[in-house]
Amino acid sequence: MSERRSTADTTALWTPDEFEAAIRAVGAERYHDKHPFHHLLHGGKLNKGQVAAWALNRYCYQSAVPRKDAALVSRVLDRQLRREWIHRVLEHDGHGDDPGGIERWLVLTDALGLDRDYVQSMTGALPATRFAVEAYVRFVYEQPLTVAVASSLTELFAPKIHKERISGMLENYDFIDDKVMAYFKKRLVQAPFDADFALNYIKDHARTRDEQEACVEAVRFKCNVLWSQLDALHHAYVTPGWIPPGAYKPETT
Amino acid sequence: MSERRSTADTTALWTPDEFEAAIRAVGAERYHDKHPFHHLLHGGKLNKGQVAAWALNRYCYQSAVPRKDAALVSRVLDRQLRREWIHRVLEHDGHGDDPGGIERWLVLTDALGLDRDYVQSMTGALPATRFAVEAYVRFVYEQPLTVAVASSLTELFAPKIHKERISGMLENYDFIDDKVMAYFKKRLVQAPFDADFALNYIKDHARTRDEQEACVEAVRFKCNVLWSQLDALHHAYVTPGWIPPGAYKPETT
Repeated sequence: MSERRSTADTTALWTPDEFEAAIRAVGAERYHDKHPFHHLLHGGKLNKGQVAAWALNRYCYQSAVPRKDAALVSRVLDRQLRREWIHRVLEHDGHGDDPGGIERWLVLTDALGLDRDYVQSMTGALPATRFAVEAYVRFVYEQPLTVAVASSLTELFAPKIHKERISGMLENYDFIDDKVMAYFKKRLVQAPFDADFALNYIKDHARTRDEQEACVEAVRFKCNVLWSQLDALHHAYVTPGWIPPGAYKPETT
Repeated sequence: MSERRSTADTTALWTPDEFEAAIRAVGAERYHDKHPFHHLLHGGKLNKGQVAAWALNRYCYQSAVPRKDAALVSRVLDRQLRREWIHRVLEHDGHGDDPGGIERWLVLTDALGLDRDYVQSMTGALPATRFAVEAYVRFVYEQPLTVAVASSLTELFAPKIHKERISGMLENYDFIDDKVMAYFKKRLVQAPFDADFALNYIKDHARTRDEQEACVEAVRFKCNVLWSQLDALHHAYVTPGWIPPGAYKPETT
């Protein structure tokens, strides 16, 4: 008997349902709703300075998203796909009368007492945040298009965390109100539509098991991008609370 | 006396007017309105197959423009600049009810008897066309942002050639009508606005003579992108008429 193992079960193309289940399993295992920092954030266990540190760092991610989506569009030969994907850029940057998601994020950082120029300069953000975010942009430039599309699929898991965040932060922090939560309320509507489109796209375009697994790995990668930002925040602003040189220092209150 | 020459006059920052004049001088010297192929095209000297070869190759350029502009947006940290520049992508790809410039271009290739799938596959295009077009996209990815913006400035020279083309082609070819010329009519309105924005941007952002000269060089580069496409067309379809292997072959009529 040969020592070479059968690989039939690990090389067969997944059905669309199996493929989707593999994607969703990544979320169940490692989406950042499970990160202890989010439990503190949503549970009202952080002070205003810690929430500000989170919002200021998360701005880097928000503001990179339209660059990431433009990077994807810049690679697409199919005009219909470009036409579909570009609305993500418009929703984040705003277009016409819509101020856009980044502007709504700055309403949050305003409410936390942060200066807009300082937030937008990103000089107070943790280096680990910047590295993670730019790794995401770079991933979308460099990976096969289907895999790049797959990396957006953490949006499948986003509505749940946004709901928890809206209710948890409104309930627990007196510096947070409905107006400030506008970003998340808007994403509750947009994210499921975008996620469905991307999920259908990869089901249609990942045509080998290797491509399907690369898509699952892309979602894992993206979860790491999100998770590592919270690790860095927790280390700098909670435990042990070692703020690296140059990073935002909350006023002690 | 030192042999080292004074460099004072070649290193001083140009005034905005001098800078603009240097940009415009590139157009006067080498914009593709001066190419003999365009004289033939606009003067009614080409047959339908030769016009079709031009339209089919030029499609590659048209369809690369939104990728090029998305590539630029993907590099921009300034949200206001992204919001401004993105409309170029929308205008080419279309958005909402607007079918967009590429769709209008396909109306032209339809009228020339070309199959849309064949045009959009780009398999019949000259390799030199594809190389030139992709060099442009790559330039926008890789050059400093101000220089990448400058490469769009051939739009300063475009309205003149579009006017010549509209009148010349309508007058000289029975297979061309107003509907088919819709692309160029639309660009008559859009291009001046876009060019003014880009010109003002580089005047504000090129802050050394070296940067100014790099911007002028970018316009020269872009003129080369356009000119080389016409050289290849002329060689393949006019004189000597050597169509390379695999490229579009007009039916002999």
